[in-house]
Amino acid sequence: MKRVLASLFAMALTCSAAVADEGMWTFDNFPSSVVEKTYGVRIDGPWLDRVRESTVRLAGCTASFVSDEGLILTNHHCAAACLAENSSKDRSLLDEGFVARGRSTEIKCPTQLADVLVAMENVTGKIDAATRGLDDRTANDARKKTLTELEQACEKTTGNKCQSVALYNGGQYFIYQYKRYTDIRLVFAPEAGIAAFGGDPDNFQFPRWCLDMALLRAYENGKPVKPIRHLKVNFEGPKAGEFVLVSGHPGSTDRLLTVSQLQQLREAELPPSLLRSNELRGRYIQFSKTSDDARRIVEDTLTGLENGIKVRRKQLDALLDEKMMAQKRREEAELRAKVSADRELAAIGDPWADIERANAIARNLDTELTYLEGAAGFNSRYFRLARTLVRGAAEREKPNTERLREFTDAALPRIRQQLAAPVPIYPELEKLTLSFGLERMREWLGPDHPTVRSLLAKDSPDTLAQSLVMGTKLGDPEVRLALWNGGAAAIAASNDPFIQLARSIDPQARALRKRYEDEVEAPISVAEEKIARARFKLYGTNVYPDATFTLRLNYGTVQGWVEKGRPVEPFTRLSTAFERATGQAPFRIPDSWQQVKASLDLSTPVNLSTNNDIVGGNSGSALLNARGEVVGLMFDGNIHSISGAYWFDTAKNRSIAVHPAIMKEALSKVYRADDLLRELGAKK
Amino acid sequence: MKRVLASLFAMALTCSAAVADEGMWTFDNFPSSVVEKTYGVRIDGPWLDRVRESTVRLAGCTASFVSDEGLILTNHHCAAACLAENSSKDRSLLDEGFVARGRSTEIKCPTQLADVLVAMENVTGKIDAATRGLDDRTANDARKKTLTELEQACEKTTGNKCQSVALYNGGQYFIYQYKRYTDIRLVFAPEAGIAAFGGDPDNFQFPRWCLDMALLRAYENGKPVKPIRHLKVNFEGPKAGEFVLVSGHPGSTDRLLTVSQLQQLREAELPPSLLRSNELRGRYIQFSKTSDDARRIVEDTLTGLENGIKVRRKQLDALLDEKMMAQKRREEAELRAKVSADRELAAIGDPWADIERANAIARNLDTELTYLEGAAGFNSRYFRLARTLVRGAAEREKPNTERLREFTDAALPRIRQQLAAPVPIYPELEKLTLSFGLERMREWLGPDHPTVRSLLAKDSPDTLAQSLVMGTKLGDPEVRLALWNGGAAAIAASNDPFIQLARSIDPQARALRKRYEDEVEAPISVAEEKIARARFKLYGTNVYPDATFTLRLNYGTVQGWVEKGRPVEPFTRLSTAFERATGQAPFRIPDSWQQVKASLDLSTPVNLSTNNDIVGGNSGSALLNARGEVVGLMFDGNIHSISGAYWFDTAKNRSIAVHPAIMKEALSKVYRADDLLRELGAKK
Repeated sequence: MKRVLASLFAMALTCSAAVADEGMWTFDNFPSSVVEKTYGVRIDGPWLDRVRESTVRLAGCTASFVSDEGLILTNHHCAAACLAENSSKDRSLLDEGFVARGRSTEIKCPTQLADVLVAMENVTGKIDAATRGLDDRTANDARKKTLTELEQACEKTTGNKCQSVALYNGGQYFIYQYKRYTDIRLVFAPEAGIAAFGGDPDNFQFPRWCLDMALLRAYENGKPVKPIRHLKVNFEGPKAGEFVLVSGHPGSTDRLLTVSQLQQLREAELPPSLLRSNELRGRYIQFSKTSDDARRIVEDTLTGLENGIKVRRKQLDALLDEKMMAQKRREEAELRAKVSADRELAAIGDPWADIERANAIARNLDTELTYLEGAAGFNSRYFRLARTLVRGAAEREKPNTERLREFTDAALPRIRQQLAAPVPIYPELEKLTLSFGLERMREWLGPDHPTVRSLLAKDSPDTLAQSLVMGTKLGDPEVRLALWNGGAAAIAASNDPFIQLARSIDPQARALRKRYEDEVEAPISVAEEKIARARFKLYGTNVYPDATFTLRLNYGTVQGWVEKGRPVEPFTRLSTAFERATGQAPFRIPDSWQQVKASLDLSTPVNLSTNNDIVGGNSGSALLNARGEVVGLMFDGNIHSISGAYWFDTAKNRSIAVHPAIMKEALSKVYRADDLLRELGAKK
Repeated sequence: MKRVLASLFAMALTCSAAVADEGMWTFDNFPSSVVEKTYGVRIDGPWLDRVRESTVRLAGCTASFVSDEGLILTNHHCAAACLAENSSKDRSLLDEGFVARGRSTEIKCPTQLADVLVAMENVTGKIDAATRGLDDRTANDARKKTLTELEQACEKTTGNKCQSVALYNGGQYFIYQYKRYTDIRLVFAPEAGIAAFGGDPDNFQFPRWCLDMALLRAYENGKPVKPIRHLKVNFEGPKAGEFVLVSGHPGSTDRLLTVSQLQQLREAELPPSLLRSNELRGRYIQFSKTSDDARRIVEDTLTGLENGIKVRRKQLDALLDEKMMAQKRREEAELRAKVSADRELAAIGDPWADIERANAIARNLDTELTYLEGAAGFNSRYFRLARTLVRGAAEREKPNTERLREFTDAALPRIRQQLAAPVPIYPELEKLTLSFGLERMREWLGPDHPTVRSLLAKDSPDTLAQSLVMGTKLGDPEVRLALWNGGAAAIAASNDPFIQLARSIDPQARALRKRYEDEVEAPISVAEEKIARARFKLYGTNVYPDATFTLRLNYGTVQGWVEKGRPVEPFTRLSTAFERATGQAPFRIPDSWQQVKASLDLSTPVNLSTNNDIVGGNSGSALLNARGEVVGLMFDGNIHSISGAYWFDTAKNRSIAVHPAIMKEALSKVYRADDLLRELGAKK
């Protein structure tokens, strides 16, 4: 297997990835001619515009408009934060699910938003002009400053949300323009018991039986939005072998990294982060056993953590695969040889060595950076809020282009939305995470590190966490907004223990960040740009850029794969879910389904697999047929898809979708949501 | 740094390690002439005999006889199991410490034992004769059978405990003969607060301030033993730069492994084991916070787990060090080239490739083997007891040489001792570990694995763990002994749920083990023997064997090292411990010390560092001066010592000892143990 894959991968980098149905293509560079040649399907400009304008970016996920009244289809797990934020110790919307009976009962999702990409401008030339002739550090600052200026100008002119995007690791810069909606409400979510049937054990597995769907609705001025466009759901779903596409926002891939960057991940970054997460998992699980309240408090957080653990665990496995690394080394050697052989390119020097040097510095900085600037040592929502308030106050006193990029004017409305959101914070859980963070900081920085020593001079991690959490008022949105609005003076006057802590840590944390930006980020940015430009010159844009949580389109077909010699079929059926149920979470099918079991068509397809090239961030993406109809709802990949962070495994990487037939069956027979079915065109 | 080390390491493998003060030498092959040449110290036969006969092997540790009344000096952490076994929910001897006031108050350590090595016989020729001409699998069985026969014959003839030892990964086989004591009692242990001051954060760190000492006493027929020999403690301790030796039982090193074996460790073995341990750590810690009882119940177990995590974490770091691996690759290539070039050796074929093939098979077996045969899926003391009872009954029906090696006649008394030991088992903790094991088994084998599916058909890991733990009677030593004595019939008739579980798992677990032995262990044993013989031919026995928890002697000097450009001094003083104390565990100095602080000499040295080459298992070893006097008590290594599993880092690998001066200060002023001071010759 590895040999075939390795050579396909080599091809992907050296000519065109299209033959492998691989690639996360930007809408302005979609390989329509290859698709037409291979599949006989014409994906033209109007098709692309319609799909782009129907596709929605949520916080960390994708979604689609599916009615002209602002109805948004996405995954249950993309609505999980909203469900958790509207839950309490005593009542869990995750457990119980939610069906709005009429518009007035739709519930606000306090931290959700929905963006639709309406324009893209290539600003590579402007960035080049702003950084030409500067040394690495000055160029790094100038690049950020210019991007802030461009975003600011765009927002002022258009009234839209404008964000810069670096494609091909800095080979191209764009300003993307979004129509943004911030009043998003929950319309429908099934119980987690069926949305995530199989829980963590089944996560990243196929065959699978999950109704991982939710419906939201975008509002503006208190009224449902009439979106620019929307997609039609085809409840028949696709056939095996059918040509399909996925439009969405893949979060992040590292397929263009250099070998030394991959080694940095496998040696210095993934292992400590996995160890930390696994211990926290154990703490959460043990905490969840102390009471039903505790279980409800921690369930959404735990699910997210376990998902992240599985991803990074399999990423580490991929990077520890010596055959794959050997292939990466060969490809890099080939590219370096071509660069040396090209008279013009040879002038760029050795950016690979520059990256390696910067990474050596990163290794010395990483632990302190993680615990102090990354705040792993102060792991709590209170601290993150305090950090935002403390830094926000300081940064807003500076001119827009001089600020840390996360505090530019363009970013402020979103920060304010999050500070104002009346989401529950549970002190028990904050104590747990904070004590954990302090304890690990003491372990990794050592008890004699000055910060550790001063924080824990008379305290244990537990006693310090206790006094901080008991003393803070930051759980109250009014208190947070008062501090935000009060600016630097209010922060300086605050005696909230978390504000005091964030204030006291800030100088060292900023100093570490500055060192990292100057000594690691700056030279790596320059080196990556050089490599990207060399690739363009040698290979053109037949190569797709790494995922950056911006809009991409990819294509493939409905298909299973061969696992240890046995074919895996691309469709699952409802009957098997009932056979597999144990009565105990996470293999417990909810009562709502058990009660109507006799009326259900057990042959209904539940999930399906395709060979589309997607990663996290694509969750909630529509699976489209050639006509641009929704024939599935992407929610996961199989276990082999995780190595997709570094390469696309043509033989085994499969994505997983909810079949529209099970949506219809559930909405009609289990949840009796006739209005929604009518709105979706499934019922007259 | 790396370059210097790498070349020293190359030397260690290719000529002699002696120049680097490196090596865990067997007493029959100690490089006395090198020592005499380098240090002007004569270590002759009588010296070696006296030290060997004073050195004691405990369960997992080392110790020394230090009086003619059977007094044994070892580490507190080597007596921790005894302290925990004599504790209860309400009272922790770990927390409180223990001082026997008179012989009659010395407490039995129910699972401890003490072995003194009295003879060694080289049986390599006999093993060769028994396996010559056989295929790998038959040879593997024949080797084990012959070793069992040799042990049996030795025990019958001598009345001593006889154990086979494979040195140089099978290059040599020995039968080691031990005088064994099984009635071991606790005489003295300080509070864990001072014995392990700094706890896990300080573990594997230096500078350090731990009184990690305990005193035990060996009894026979109800009376203190008069040992063959004993060592004298020199309470002055050593000087900086002084020549010193360590006699003890290093547990395990992997310095002679092939590159593919090291890759197997870093890619397939260490990561999953670390992830599992880290989650369990989180569960234990969270459990410990639920009550004081819970904290006491779990403290010893947690300490052991955290120690293991730190070791494996730094081992993984070492194996992820590409420079070190490149060096290993070069050395292996050199050895392979020499083998190919040698007409006689070339006939052995390619044992490196044989190992690589076997490891590929291991990778497919590993997960099932770990969870079912390794019983990680049934992680509980009850299950381990049940497994022992179920297998023991079946195995004892077979002739001695046909049995699984852990159930030969030679092994039975120790099994019986452990079954009979009235040690507390806490159901709350058993539920925690068992539920954890079941949950991870479901994750790693998948919910559709037949064993998982049948166990959890209607249960969650929690509900199954609950019913198993609540239903078992195996916490009662009488019940265990009745089942042991009742043999196969009693096992077949038992309706204890753990016995039933162990019975039901046994066929698959044994089948996995058999496959592993035949397809992995057998070819690897043969290949390792071939490589070892090639090494002997090319390099002689100037190379020391990997550690195997058998008696070794090494030498070095009292010294610190240079850490990031700064020298670390080899001695610490009591004053600094008080300065560093926070009042909160694990940085809390016990009240017994605080109360007499004014009377203490704060300049007393507490710990010291040397460059002796030791690893886990050496804990409790005496640090000896040239005259063979005890001038320290080894209890740890610095953080760089952990890579000692794979190579000896001359510049930075340091071992850590308790200074005898602090022992005297503590016994006299804090614990007022005048009788012990007299027995140790420190007081008239």
